[in-house]
Amino acid sequence: MISLSEAVEILKNHDKFNILIHAFPDGDTIGSGFALCYALRAIGKKANVVSNDAISHTYDFLLKDYKEQEFEVETYISTDVADLKLLGKNHEFYDGKIILAIDHHATNKNFAQNLLLDAGASSACEIVLQVIEKMGVPITKTIAECIYTGLSTDTGCFKYSNTTPFTHRVAAQMMEIGIDFDEINRIMFDTKTRKRLVMERMILDTIAYYYGGRMSVIVITNEMIKKSGASDSELEGITSLPRQIEGVKIGVTLREKEDGCFKISVRTHTPIDAAEICSKFGGGGHVRAAGCSVEGNPEEIKQQFVDVCKGYFE
Amino acid sequence: MISLSEAVEILKNHDKFNILIHAFPDGDTIGSGFALCYALRAIGKKANVVSNDAISHTYDFLLKDYKEQEFEVETYISTDVADLKLLGKNHEFYDGKIILAIDHHATNKNFAQNLLLDAGASSACEIVLQVIEKMGVPITKTIAECIYTGLSTDTGCFKYSNTTPFTHRVAAQMMEIGIDFDEINRIMFDTKTRKRLVMERMILDTIAYYYGGRMSVIVITNEMIKKSGASDSELEGITSLPRQIEGVKIGVTLREKEDGCFKISVRTHTPIDAAEICSKFGGGGHVRAAGCSVEGNPEEIKQQFVDVCKGYFE
Repeated sequence: MISLSEAVEILKNHDKFNILIHAFPDGDTIGSGFALCYALRAIGKKANVVSNDAISHTYDFLLKDYKEQEFEVETYISTDVADLKLLGKNHEFYDGKIILAIDHHATNKNFAQNLLLDAGASSACEIVLQVIEKMGVPITKTIAECIYTGLSTDTGCFKYSNTTPFTHRVAAQMMEIGIDFDEINRIMFDTKTRKRLVMERMILDTIAYYYGGRMSVIVITNEMIKKSGASDSELEGITSLPRQIEGVKIGVTLREKEDGCFKISVRTHTPIDAAEICSKFGGGGHVRAAGCSVEGNPEEIKQQFVDVCKGYFE
Repeated sequence: MISLSEAVEILKNHDKFNILIHAFPDGDTIGSGFALCYALRAIGKKANVVSNDAISHTYDFLLKDYKEQEFEVETYISTDVADLKLLGKNHEFYDGKIILAIDHHATNKNFAQNLLLDAGASSACEIVLQVIEKMGVPITKTIAECIYTGLSTDTGCFKYSNTTPFTHRVAAQMMEIGIDFDEINRIMFDTKTRKRLVMERMILDTIAYYYGGRMSVIVITNEMIKKSGASDSELEGITSLPRQIEGVKIGVTLREKEDGCFKISVRTHTPIDAAEICSKFGGGGHVRAAGCSVEGNPEEIKQQFVDVCKGYFE
């Protein structure tokens, strides 16, 4: 691991950057990648952002000052990438070539020649902002929008436990630059597609309650996905629905996969251990969020989970 | 209008407080009222919080240090109350009796003998925190939780345009006191009742789209409310649903009232003027959010709105 100053030295001593962001790019990898790209260009370097997957049009407002530059790449760096594999399908090409990874995941696999890691940061954007400031680059409105988008999306708009006092202070600083933060939040948090709503409507029909409402289960089948036309990204966060219901301690989502198998997501409230439940089906995960795969028909699988959870409610 | 120092002098020179909060109490009126109550008690004053309506059990965590005190009331003050009428059904009793109102609504009716108003504050809690600090009272964990809850609920968790850099800095300061901010946000933003979900399920069935998806309308009937058993508070925020749909510029909610009339809520995106639309039906409001009342059956009313909005989409 290297220091902020060392990271800035590396950036200053190199040129012709490809900034790699992770596959299925989210607000933080996009925000941190483009913020750094704009900053490198501001000190006269050549730099592009490279994504394995298409960047959703939702993020167009961060790319309005961006035009791909032509140059022969000399330097690979990455932002918000915890593992080489997360670069997507061409990740092997980059093995050994990345000279600097800037990241905030405690689980970072240390795949780069140099790693600037702050596992206490809410987002990679928090770290990239400090890099940019240390580079002496003024924070433009577009850079501020990139940074704010990363903070805000990685913390669920300052809602989740990874938010820190520093996150709030950075948000305040970005707002003072004059960004349209409420419009950013509207795009990120208050917009649903029609297909998503069709899915929600069907999913609400599947809710089943057990143990006096302390456990709830929803089911997503391939037929529902086909009928609604919803993509994976349109189903984001749906697994948190069952646990959001007042009184529910264990929320379970059964999602049918292409092969007919069901992917199960278990979300719990204190003190119930989601990983413990999933371990009984050969899966695992965290205390509040875990998963496993189970074969069978949804009604049978539901019953198996209800039976396994009985002990928590007696 | 008085200054912060003058407000603090008034509080120090009085005793035996009833702190009035507004009817249908929300996080900000509850947070600011109880924070001030705890602070007054900390300097040896007698103080209670008085609410016309029951405070939802959702807010129990702010009341865990609260026990009603017995005393003969000498002083009435209010927090987050913009108009005497908003105190609820006994409001006339308080006419002329309130010596200090602490508020952040630009529309405050100036009903109290003294008004401490900051229309630029996101929430009454932001102002009450400054009052408490000026009183020299240390910010306890419970006071910090009250203040944070007010900030967070009035800004939609720092999402809306009323959030300021100061709001974020106050949030950071409250977090440093060691509050369970993520648990507060879970209770405030990530919890839905079963009845609410039943309503959502029925409302999703009523969505109609017009003008290629640029206008959408939902309908809430008395029959739906009866069937779900949902209360008014469980329907909070539902009028923002139609406008949240990707591509929608005008979102309309028809809500049947007890008398069979429909209350219409219109929400728009730039540049469409919601107040202009509602003015054609004898209503009014703001540019992005307006309302009116219309008699008739829902299908006819829908058609009237679709016709009136035609001009925006040609």
